[in-house]
Amino acid sequence: MNKNTFMRLKLPIICFTWEIAMIILFGVFVRYNHEAGPEWLEEKKKDNNKSDIENDFYFRYPSFQDVHVMIFVGFGFLMTFLQKYGFGSVAFNFMLAAFGIQWAILMQGWFHSFEDGKILIGVENLINADFCVGSVCIAFGGVLGKVSPVQVLVMTLFQVTLFSVNEWVLLNQLHVIDAGGSMTIHTFGAYFGLTVAFILRRPKLNERNHNEGSVYHSDIFAMIGTLFLWMYWPSFNSAVSNHGDAQHRAAINTYCSLASSVLTTIAISSAVNKTGKLDMVHIQNATLAGGVAVGTAAEMMLTPYGSLIVGFICGIVSTLGYKYLSPLLTSKLGLHDTCGIHNLHGMPGIIGGIVGAVTAAAATEDVYTAPGLIAMFRFEGDWANRSPSTQGGYQAAGICVSLAFAFVGGTIVGLILKLPIWGEPADENCFEDAVYWEIPNEEEEVETSNQYVAHEPQYHNTLKMSEEP
Amino acid sequence: MNKNTFMRLKLPIICFTWEIAMIILFGVFVRYNHEAGPEWLEEKKKDNNKSDIENDFYFRYPSFQDVHVMIFVGFGFLMTFLQKYGFGSVAFNFMLAAFGIQWAILMQGWFHSFEDGKILIGVENLINADFCVGSVCIAFGGVLGKVSPVQVLVMTLFQVTLFSVNEWVLLNQLHVIDAGGSMTIHTFGAYFGLTVAFILRRPKLNERNHNEGSVYHSDIFAMIGTLFLWMYWPSFNSAVSNHGDAQHRAAINTYCSLASSVLTTIAISSAVNKTGKLDMVHIQNATLAGGVAVGTAAEMMLTPYGSLIVGFICGIVSTLGYKYLSPLLTSKLGLHDTCGIHNLHGMPGIIGGIVGAVTAAAATEDVYTAPGLIAMFRFEGDWANRSPSTQGGYQAAGICVSLAFAFVGGTIVGLILKLPIWGEPADENCFEDAVYWEIPNEEEEVETSNQYVAHEPQYHNTLKMSEEP
Amino acid sequence: MNKNTFMRLKLPIICFTWEIAMIILFGVFVRYNHEAGPEWLEEKKKDNNKSDIENDFYFRYPSFQDVHVMIFVGFGFLMTFLQKYGFGSVAFNFMLAAFGIQWAILMQGWFHSFEDGKILIGVENLINADFCVGSVCIAFGGVLGKVSPVQVLVMTLFQVTLFSVNEWVLLNQLHVIDAGGSMTIHTFGAYFGLTVAFILRRPKLNERNHNEGSVYHSDIFAMIGTLFLWMYWPSFNSAVSNHGDAQHRAAINTYCSLASSVLTTIAISSAVNKTGKLDMVHIQNATLAGGVAVGTAAEMMLTPYGSLIVGFICGIVSTLGYKYLSPLLTSKLGLHDTCGIHNLHGMPGIIGGIVGAVTAAAATEDVYTAPGLIAMFRFEGDWANRSPSTQGGYQAAGICVSLAFAFVGGTIVGLILKLPIWGEPADENCFEDAVYWEIPNEEEEVETSNQYVAHEPQYHNTLKMSEEP
Repeated sequence: MNKNTFMRLKLPIICFTWEIAMIILFGVFVRYNHEAGPEWLEEKKKDNNKSDIENDFYFRYPSFQDVHVMIFVGFGFLMTFLQKYGFGSVAFNFMLAAFGIQWAILMQGWFHSFEDGKILIGVENLINADFCVGSVCIAFGGVLGKVSPVQVLVMTLFQVTLFSVNEWVLLNQLHVIDAGGSMTIHTFGAYFGLTVAFILRRPKLNERNHNEGSVYHSDIFAMIGTLFLWMYWPSFNSAVSNHGDAQHRAAINTYCSLASSVLTTIAISSAVNKTGKLDMVHIQNATLAGGVAVGTAAEMMLTPYGSLIVGFICGIVSTLGYKYLSPLLTSKLGLHDTCGIHNLHGMPGIIGGIVGAVTAAAATEDVYTAPGLIAMFRFEGDWANRSPSTQGGYQAAGICVSLAFAFVGGTIVGLILKLPIWGEPADENCFEDAVYWEIPNEEEEVETSNQYVAHEPQYHNTLKMSEEP
Repeated sequence: MNKNTFMRLKLPIICFTWEIAMIILFGVFVRYNHEAGPEWLEEKKKDNNKSDIENDFYFRYPSFQDVHVMIFVGFGFLMTFLQKYGFGSVAFNFMLAAFGIQWAILMQGWFHSFEDGKILIGVENLINADFCVGSVCIAFGGVLGKVSPVQVLVMTLFQVTLFSVNEWVLLNQLHVIDAGGSMTIHTFGAYFGLTVAFILRRPKLNERNHNEGSVYHSDIFAMIGTLFLWMYWPSFNSAVSNHGDAQHRAAINTYCSLASSVLTTIAISSAVNKTGKLDMVHIQNATLAGGVAVGTAAEMMLTPYGSLIVGFICGIVSTLGYKYLSPLLTSKLGLHDTCGIHNLHGMPGIIGGIVGAVTAAAATEDVYTAPGLIAMFRFEGDWANRSPSTQGGYQAAGICVSLAFAFVGGTIVGLILKLPIWGEPADENCFEDAVYWEIPNEEEEVETSNQYVAHEPQYHNTLKMSEEP
Repeated sequence: MNKNTFMRLKLPIICFTWEIAMIILFGVFVRYNHEAGPEWLEEKKKDNNKSDIENDFYFRYPSFQDVHVMIFVGFGFLMTFLQKYGFGSVAFNFMLAAFGIQWAILMQGWFHSFEDGKILIGVENLINADFCVGSVCIAFGGVLGKVSPVQVLVMTLFQVTLFSVNEWVLLNQLHVIDAGGSMTIHTFGAYFGLTVAFILRRPKLNERNHNEGSVYHSDIFAMIGTLFLWMYWPSFNSAVSNHGDAQHRAAINTYCSLASSVLTTIAISSAVNKTGKLDMVHIQNATLAGGVAVGTAAEMMLTPYGSLIVGFICGIVSTLGYKYLSPLLTSKLGLHDTCGIHNLHGMPGIIGGIVGAVTAAAATEDVYTAPGLIAMFRFEGDWANRSPSTQGGYQAAGICVSLAFAFVGGTIVGLILKLPIWGEPADENCFEDAVYWEIPNEEEEVETSNQYVAHEPQYHNTLKMSEEP
């Protein structure tokens, strides 16, 4: 049952080929947009001598950096809870995101920033690329520890592509509002990842692998990820909203929803434990559910108390999911979801889509003012005559479309990843860095008869795999 | 002597009750302000077609996010230095802050943002709520490891209330300047926390509990907290200052003061050790004293060298406090201050108040210009005739009022927390996560005869408490 | 062969003396500039009643904070990879940076912000001070673990001075563009540090010291540093660029280059390992090479694909450097480079300088527009008649000047640091915190017969040095 996990050819070839492809495609297509190029000087003058501070860079760059931290430190460290998979968690996440943002700039650029044969990019494209990659980070959480780095890269390629098509259908065809991506990022990402995880299921892993747990310090590392995700989520949900009040409101709503999630997560975590003790898994994850679930409605007039209610519900749903639903999915369906993405992104994502649909359908000129309503839902051009209730219907359709893309796309990609050529780890070596990483060798320490580090994890003897010369 | 630390009823009940109360109160009172609601569109037009970039969001949101990081990662990780209390440090801080900001938005809103029966919130309210919670994080540092999560939540409820009243007295009645909160946040927070810690004192803990120390890695985790506090403190002290030069100046002054603290902390840390070695406790804490002590005067014309002098003094005072004063307070008064908040926030907070009073009293039109002096001290309306020297007197009064609120409030809240119904830990289990947390269980690992993690802390056998079924 | 590493006199004396000198010099020279002082009120009015948002603070403060995080958390944690030098890495970096920024504000102020006998500072000075200190952090990486804190402070004093002179020659005499500091920060910093490391070389350390490696958790701590450097590098390279499109473009170029580095680093890391496994050292460092190498050209019209190509090359060069060149330098020259700064900052810095020279020489009015070309290269005043190709020549000269400053300056400073009065550690105690730090003592734990922390590193017995009473 040994597996060939030898990466020396596959990984360099795929990295080089794809990066060269990126260079060629960027060379052909990608240029700076008019706010990042020298035309800005001209444009300022024409537009009534406006100030440099009105460059979109100053509206969005601080939020961009917060989103960037969420993708790389947030998701990366959130997954370091596994006791022996810290390298893989943080570094494969780094790898997939670094590749994914390049491919996302192209894919999203063709759909949204294509002018005269060129993709014109600015800070908003960078944010959107991070968003797209966010959905891959989510899916990666479902298969964490069970796939090779090559599989991660293949999944990224396909998922970014599918994400962009789905996003185009939602935003451009259904004309749906989804600033924080409850549907496009979370629902799509989670169910795509779960479908892939299901296709790649390994019956032997259903009895809990002893590597799958955390240790004391790995749980604290994971809290770095949790907190940066939690703190910067208001930036995530407001990063690409309209300038002015919409961005302002999206930040407030997300802040409220997240605060509420924390309290109900703690309540349920204690209530479902027979000794009343809290579980770090819940704190690390379910506290974030409120941010997921206001993704769609964040810039709408959800009201602060509406946001609290959303967070309240999602903290409960998500924690219960970790406690009861995940074990059930594993035992009944064989669906093993390493990070519990169904609880953190799947269910809260769908709730977020529904909240968005309801809030949109309930919109009135009374609440938004007439020009405010048009600005909010972009009832302009082809959509000038759409009513809020129709908008609500389309929002709901957006959830279904995202789910369909996730299931169909996930199935196809899962089958591709199942091909026995990608170097996946053997069942016994899942959740173990030593398969793909040089692990610091402490044995020499022992010989020197000093006791400094003899007690760190030792990885050397338990690997059971064939390694090519 | 066993204690009932069973949380399964108390914690969920208190979390649910309070969160539902928040939802109801937010529903009745809280709405978006005119910069976060659709009125912004109208307002822009009226105000000479001003740009979206003049929305307060763009002035304050980057600082808000920095402050947010300080509260959640800064304070949370600073307290992870305890070897077996990392979960409690970071997660109870997370819990108290998430609840506290909601209650603070209400309390501060009633005092400062109440119009026509509604609290109108925007980004500045979010910052002020974080500030208010900062004082609770400080007080939590005094009782860290010795209280139950329920006690933490009860303390938060009362402290936020008292903070808001004290803040209202200072800002609205005494018309005091305190942008970075030397008085309202640090002095009040520290002496409130110390009073509570004194009321809850446990004579047995005076001999140093073996759990109370750090281990090598926990000290490095704590440095994450230290550095984020240190780096973002200029944002903290400038976050709610006037737009323009005041915000700019507050950041510069804080930057200078903090830099100076680091050098004197290192000097004293080495000088007071008989082998000249540095102590991580000093580096983790006293380096921040300069930020505390320019809280009041940060936006004034303190001058860069004035800031250096403040940091210089506070680095010395704070380090000496850790070395000599804290042990004395414990042995003489039985006052056990887990994180040394007296040294980091108490004394530097009072120094900060004094520096603010002196700087205000010394203000002249020469230095500030006539309109600058009015803008700085808001000598408008009822206060149009106040002179700088009178202002200095009121600033000094602000310190005394904050201390009075801290001592009286702390006594009352301490007595409430002393009631034997909150599930506090037994003396032997102080500073130990296992009382309130499911700790990753490594014993099964040992059976599998692999040596990965057998050496992580093992929590299972030493707990001495009764747990209800 | 014992060394006197006693710091109790030296370190406090140097800290106090220098901090007092800073206070005096700041008192004589440093004041707020017109955007941080009350003149701002007047200035706004005069300038057509412009908005507070046009204060330079709002253009640069978010980038400043990102740069600040890179210096303190980025560099500090990147160096915590050493298993027993975490305290020294993060805290000596903290110390040198806190001192360095004060001295840099003075040195750079005299050269660039000196008006009527005063140095007028604002947010841009804070950024530039952080930049200057960045070069010291780099050099510190070369001597990490082999020097005393006093040596670190002495090196900082001299290096900041030399940096400022070199920067002045480049920016003011050669009129070179170097927004992200490929030449002034990275090339100068790395070769200065390498020269010092060479002068201080210790033949015994050439066989790998057993303390020099990492352990599992220390490698994860180091990834905190890596990721914050990686994420915020776009802010670093754009922080002091011209307002508007230049800042926007610099961020985009850096983002692209960094993404590309990650892929080629992973490719090479796997390809050069005989079992195809990845090495954390490469991921921690070489992924950042792309940021270094677009430092000079970041704000130029490098184009996104040009940036990808730069990152592509530097990921390869840097990883190969770690694998093959560093061991060679140690064995052939005795040049021991603890953090591999030659691979991360040295070679990519020179490449960055060359890329900048070529990009400048190739600039045309076609690409930049006529006013854009002038704005970009500041072809004004004395330099109004300089052509792009001449500019390219001067850029190239900048590399050589920086190298000359590094080698000559490094030699002098290295010889000063070689004096046997600074308390450097013995060879056996290199890379070991216990020489300069109180290490948490876990022995008492063992006596209490609990097994919590007996397995953390124990530092007590192996130290071989004389300590004065």
